[in-house]
Amino acid sequence: MPRVTPTPRTATARGPYAKSARTRTLILDAAFAVFASAGYRKGSLREIAERVDMSEAGLLHHFRNKAELLLAVLDHRDELARSRFAFEQHAGRGALDDLIALADYNSTIPGVIELFCTLSAEATSPDHPAHDFFRKRYENSRQIVVDALSVIRAEGGLRDGVDIPSAAARSIAVWDGLQIQWLLDRTALDMADELRACFDEFLIEDLAPPRRALPGPVESPGTADAGGTAPADSGESTSELRMPERTRSAR
Amino acid sequence: MPRVTPTPRTATARGPYAKSARTRTLILDAAFAVFASAGYRKGSLREIAERVDMSEAGLLHHFRNKAELLLAVLDHRDELARSRFAFEQHAGRGALDDLIALADYNSTIPGVIELFCTLSAEATSPDHPAHDFFRKRYENSRQIVVDALSVIRAEGGLRDGVDIPSAAARSIAVWDGLQIQWLLDRTALDMADELRACFDEFLIEDLAPPRRALPGPVESPGTADAGGTAPADSGESTSELRMPERTRSAR
Repeated sequence: MPRVTPTPRTATARGPYAKSARTRTLILDAAFAVFASAGYRKGSLREIAERVDMSEAGLLHHFRNKAELLLAVLDHRDELARSRFAFEQHAGRGALDDLIALADYNSTIPGVIELFCTLSAEATSPDHPAHDFFRKRYENSRQIVVDALSVIRAEGGLRDGVDIPSAAARSIAVWDGLQIQWLLDRTALDMADELRACFDEFLIEDLAPPRRALPGPVESPGTADAGGTAPADSGESTSELRMPERTRSAR
Repeated sequence: MPRVTPTPRTATARGPYAKSARTRTLILDAAFAVFASAGYRKGSLREIAERVDMSEAGLLHHFRNKAELLLAVLDHRDELARSRFAFEQHAGRGALDDLIALADYNSTIPGVIELFCTLSAEATSPDHPAHDFFRKRYENSRQIVVDALSVIRAEGGLRDGVDIPSAAARSIAVWDGLQIQWLLDRTALDMADELRACFDEFLIEDLAPPRRALPGPVESPGTADAGGTAPADSGESTSELRMPERTRSAR
């Protein structure tokens, strides 16, 4: 329930604004759940509105349209990850290890990956509301890999002839493409293993095996469950994960 | 106009079926033009129907829904490429050269890439009408790279330790991811150069520079035109291109 006693200096934070912020958070939680389980196409504004006991028109008072709500969900996802994981600023090989562990963790939330894939593809249209968001997100992601490889080069750990900006663009590209192939056929590949193999191409010494969010990767077609079981508690092995996006400013 | 004199052995090919086939081709040409210029989101069934002087209901008699029409457009695109290019079955390094030239050619048809990116992401949902199409398409694409790298290994041209299925999955993945990054920012990278760099990681001897569909790649931010000028005639330098998908059966 909202506070009803206004205090001059913090009136907006405690009054109607605070109520609106709470409502937004409720909507985002509902939208996250709906899109993660039903996917982007089937997740409807109506279902989200019903979950928070609002009308669709009421929901659209907080988010102009479905695209804007999706964008807010992605932001919200980053926030959830930040509150869940310690965002340690590893450098060099440690940063690459973190990215691989994140790729593995993502395999426990396929609905969110699906959402991300769909929205990033749509957002390639210059007039899409999420266009600038994704453009900056990719700039930022590439820069994280550039920074990691630059540190590794300074340490003498990079193979001769590696073009760092090119290697960074390809690493982020392979990650995206692996997600699409994995979503289409979860027996076809292991995202963390393949991202690690991609990084290993640039390094004199191979990286360590991925830290796993769940015990044991999918290793054979027989063990894959495309329907997706609920992920087990992954607190112990993923506590050092950090998100690749938005933890540093785009340059 | 349809032939009206039925001939027993070819009645269906010349009669109503032939008319229906021509109508479908007209719709596909219109849909290709609309989706390629307006993109997936903005290209409407209504606009496509208007181009072929039909009602939207009439159009939906030929294609059940927008998704099915999009899928048919992708098939149609493959057909156009087959009739335009000589699909020579190069093996080994020649096959990789072909794929790189195709990646370059794709940069002249950004609307179609956008369409492909959007639809492949959506189709990751198991109940999407294009799900099986894309799953097989990726199997097929990976197999083409597997075949090429296997020939190169037999010739002694592959670096030690390259895992061919993994390298193939990552090559196709990097291609997809490069398309997204390129569509978001055409100054960020050159798709053909990066795909070639990806392949070169596996090879003892680097591949030749890409065959270009248009004279001169975009080399500096100042020369990029995100609005897209019409591609110049590209017949002479792309005549040896072949499409990577559907030219071999999936295994």
